[in-house]
Amino acid sequence: MKILFIGDVVGSPGREMLKENLPHLKKQYHPDVTIVNGENAAHGKGITEKIYRQMKEWGANVITLGNHAWDKKDIFEFIDDVNDMVRPANFPPDTPGKGMTFYKAGNKEIAVINAQGRTFLPPIEDPFRVVDELVKEAKKRTPYIFVDFHAEATSEKQAIGWFLDGRVGGVAGTHTHVQTADNRILPKGTAYITDAGMTGPYNGILGMDKDSVLRRFHTALPVRFEVAEDGPTQLSGVFIEMNKDNGMARRIERILINNDHPFFH
Amino acid sequence: MKILFIGDVVGSPGREMLKENLPHLKKQYHPDVTIVNGENAAHGKGITEKIYRQMKEWGANVITLGNHAWDKKDIFEFIDDVNDMVRPANFPPDTPGKGMTFYKAGNKEIAVINAQGRTFLPPIEDPFRVVDELVKEAKKRTPYIFVDFHAEATSEKQAIGWFLDGRVGGVAGTHTHVQTADNRILPKGTAYITDAGMTGPYNGILGMDKDSVLRRFHTALPVRFEVAEDGPTQLSGVFIEMNKDNGMARRIERILINNDHPFFH
Amino acid sequence: MKILFIGDVVGSPGREMLKENLPHLKKQYHPDVTIVNGENAAHGKGITEKIYRQMKEWGANVITLGNHAWDKKDIFEFIDDVNDMVRPANFPPDTPGKGMTFYKAGNKEIAVINAQGRTFLPPIEDPFRVVDELVKEAKKRTPYIFVDFHAEATSEKQAIGWFLDGRVGGVAGTHTHVQTADNRILPKGTAYITDAGMTGPYNGILGMDKDSVLRRFHTALPVRFEVAEDGPTQLSGVFIEMNKDNGMARRIERILINNDHPFFH
Amino acid sequence: MKILFIGDVVGSPGREMLKENLPHLKKQYHPDVTIVNGENAAHGKGITEKIYRQMKEWGANVITLGNHAWDKKDIFEFIDDVNDMVRPANFPPDTPGKGMTFYKAGNKEIAVINAQGRTFLPPIEDPFRVVDELVKEAKKRTPYIFVDFHAEATSEKQAIGWFLDGRVGGVAGTHTHVQTADNRILPKGTAYITDAGMTGPYNGILGMDKDSVLRRFHTALPVRFEVAEDGPTQLSGVFIEMNKDNGMARRIERILINNDHPFFH
Ligand SMILES: [Fe+2]
Ligand SMILES: [Fe+2]
Ligand SMILES: [Fe+2]
Ligand SMILES: [Fe+2]
Ligand SMILES: [Fe+2]
Ligand SMILES: [Fe+2]
Ligand SMILES: [Fe+2]
Ligand SMILES: [Fe+2]
Repeated sequence: MKILFIGDVVGSPGREMLKENLPHLKKQYHPDVTIVNGENAAHGKGITEKIYRQMKEWGANVITLGNHAWDKKDIFEFIDDVNDMVRPANFPPDTPGKGMTFYKAGNKEIAVINAQGRTFLPPIEDPFRVVDELVKEAKKRTPYIFVDFHAEATSEKQAIGWFLDGRVGGVAGTHTHVQTADNRILPKGTAYITDAGMTGPYNGILGMDKDSVLRRFHTALPVRFEVAEDGPTQLSGVFIEMNKDNGMARRIERILINNDHPFFH
Repeated sequence: MKILFIGDVVGSPGREMLKENLPHLKKQYHPDVTIVNGENAAHGKGITEKIYRQMKEWGANVITLGNHAWDKKDIFEFIDDVNDMVRPANFPPDTPGKGMTFYKAGNKEIAVINAQGRTFLPPIEDPFRVVDELVKEAKKRTPYIFVDFHAEATSEKQAIGWFLDGRVGGVAGTHTHVQTADNRILPKGTAYITDAGMTGPYNGILGMDKDSVLRRFHTALPVRFEVAEDGPTQLSGVFIEMNKDNGMARRIERILINNDHPFFH
Repeated sequence: MKILFIGDVVGSPGREMLKENLPHLKKQYHPDVTIVNGENAAHGKGITEKIYRQMKEWGANVITLGNHAWDKKDIFEFIDDVNDMVRPANFPPDTPGKGMTFYKAGNKEIAVINAQGRTFLPPIEDPFRVVDELVKEAKKRTPYIFVDFHAEATSEKQAIGWFLDGRVGGVAGTHTHVQTADNRILPKGTAYITDAGMTGPYNGILGMDKDSVLRRFHTALPVRFEVAEDGPTQLSGVFIEMNKDNGMARRIERILINNDHPFFH
Repeated sequence: MKILFIGDVVGSPGREMLKENLPHLKKQYHPDVTIVNGENAAHGKGITEKIYRQMKEWGANVITLGNHAWDKKDIFEFIDDVNDMVRPANFPPDTPGKGMTFYKAGNKEIAVINAQGRTFLPPIEDPFRVVDELVKEAKKRTPYIFVDFHAEATSEKQAIGWFLDGRVGGVAGTHTHVQTADNRILPKGTAYITDAGMTGPYNGILGMDKDSVLRRFHTALPVRFEVAEDGPTQLSGVFIEMNKDNGMARRIERILINNDHPFFH
């Protein structure tokens, strides 16, 4: 099972970057499934049905989300009608949408789980317990499981990686918008990276216009952040390959495309 | 000006790793100055005079610190007697120690600044303002300036990078204990990385015993964390080269040594 | 059903104040049940079996706790052996102890629930959902229910008050160690106060030695807080009276005893 | 020097309550100066010039603010043109407005200082240091000093109270919107209360519509809070009297007007 995972797509620069590069990435990696984190796809905050459909058209098979999932009201209009988009599973029981989905890749199936950390983020349900239950449920159906763990603290992300080691084939962190260099296969077979990184503006701060972010740090006054629309862009993600027999990983490779790391296809 | 910077050394596994690898790294990179973050060098929290002296002996020229600087009481006994150790500059005015030092490398001199972020960390003085003042002061004396920005949030770290772009040759983040893959030279010449990563246990959680950290996440009860003493180790850092004329960077290279990325010397 | 509730007892000054005043308070209020928050009873952090037994002897019928419940290891030795002490109910499922108990007062019974907020406090289970379930369970057995909601934010505390209005006879907040003046009976019959206040040193900061707390604010360095052992003390609490028929409140009165508000018995 | 201080006025219910009661309160207390916290006066967030002028007309002499000061853009249009409105003094150096003002009451003058806490609030300048400097400055001009300390944590509020004991005549906390019952005169003469409380809706949560606040706690989804427009209202504040000779307090009295505590004038 080959998985192409793309980290948080930010605004129109991110969407453009995704649209442009997905075909080339698919040609290079031949993924069975392409998973894209879309929590920032609409102007940096949330996602709309239109954007969801576009990303599907461009080649995304499953969309994952995060704390910004709910920022555009449109989400509540379509999240319960689509089967291939997951929001963090550990929101309270009655939350719209779902936290796990199964994607059919040929005659195989992969479970995609989205969960959110609680350290430096609002208190929701315990991600360890909720993911534990979902993994048990998924195991009944398929050996292939991928978790997008959307969290701030490196401690909580590494903790979920070790917690799931040997039980799921891949854990990729998202949310910090900075790709980490710690991609590895944990001792019991789980491919892990603390953060897959962000897809969008290369010269912003987490994708937002840097002057406005700096102004907020300098003044402590309310400043509205806009996506850094102009300038170069980047795409971040990981490629994971899971073994046929047990779903454990044999490979995790970082993908980082920007002016400093051009992509030759 | 060639700078070898080693990220947070954690406990005895980190110190061993440092001692073992510094000679080889020096042979490979020929640094003019070797800077080591030692905030976790003593049992994962703080630093003692004995450990400070050892790290100097092994080849560290300047020691930087962070939020854990004060965890071992011993620090208050020697911090004001040494000239080559810096604690975050933006602690309140009367704090022992200092936030900037100048290291003499041959006939050149480099200013080393340590500062601490405030997002998800205790409130201290404004790091942007304090670093701004120190950079102005340093500029009067030398074109070579390196900043270890010890912070949690990727937003605050990228912000300080952009804030200093074109004014200092290098900004390396520390504190998250996970190396990021975003090392680059910003448009005006500042070498930047969000986090240099950690030097210590490879199979812990941020260097601490993973079972205890997991127990805390599972139970929400007080759990004492110990350094993950057994098992493989890693070393993380960056190498930066600054131009002779203006002190701006021409190169920033990630250093990551562990079982998955062995170091061939 | 008459309830005497005493807010967080802090260290030996708090215990002395409790011992001295409980007899007089009982003579004045004739409570059917006396409930005491003991999360800070042992040196300001946690509780021991010895102290628990003393407080029972002095007249406490039920002990409630809070975030500091676990600070003295001794708690784990006896919490599962006693039936009249409750820790926050919304800790994870396998936590030692329990979050609700029933106290027999003559031929009546009162359910005592302890829960902890999540705003500005570590993430645990959802207090609203957990308390909701416990209240439903308690209702099957008795109309008399009292909730000690241990929380920091006034918003979360008022929210639980309104959430429970008409369903429990009394909600008293604890944790901030400052008594609030907003005791009232909510429209549907729930007696409510945002915080019952603290029992212990009158001239400390939340009961701790004020010089050490000030030093921490001034220096941002680690400072060990000790209970303010010398000087005057205070006792804080509330008296609530619930109707016989439906368990709703007919009265909530603040109790505050200190040098500025002496108690004439 | 007699001071009437009114806590956070929330939205139109708060403004109505202020307008209606100020004349009666003035008749009862004969204050030399009336100070009103207006950080929530405009729809619960911020203040406008129009509302500022109204509150002045109704009898406020000085307006204090807090973390919500900046929520209505209008503030930036007039804050530098008025002399009798203060925002937290410990915002960064270039912040519009000022943190201290002097009000002339007959042939006497009182300094009014506004500062903001940092615990559970965004990091700004050190309130202890900034207030310390302002108090020294004020002392040169008048013995009468009043501080509105806008903060969340009871620890930080009590700390500033003890820090200023004997140096200013009055410290009243604001921000939690719940009046505390700990009004007292500290040993060296400072009148102190942890929170003066809120002026506005009596049946909301901190003045906001309770159903929307509860929805946010239950769902963890973004919910827009509106002021609880209908229903009963309350007014909260304190009255402080300072000695002529040294400016220290001889009296601090809580003011709380609502359905449960009607005001007979
Ligand atoms: Fe994101
Ligand atoms: Fe996010
Ligand atoms: Fe560290
Ligand atoms: Fe650190
Ligand atoms: Fe307490
Ligand atoms: Fe507490
Ligand atoms: Fe307010
Ligand atoms: Fe406020």
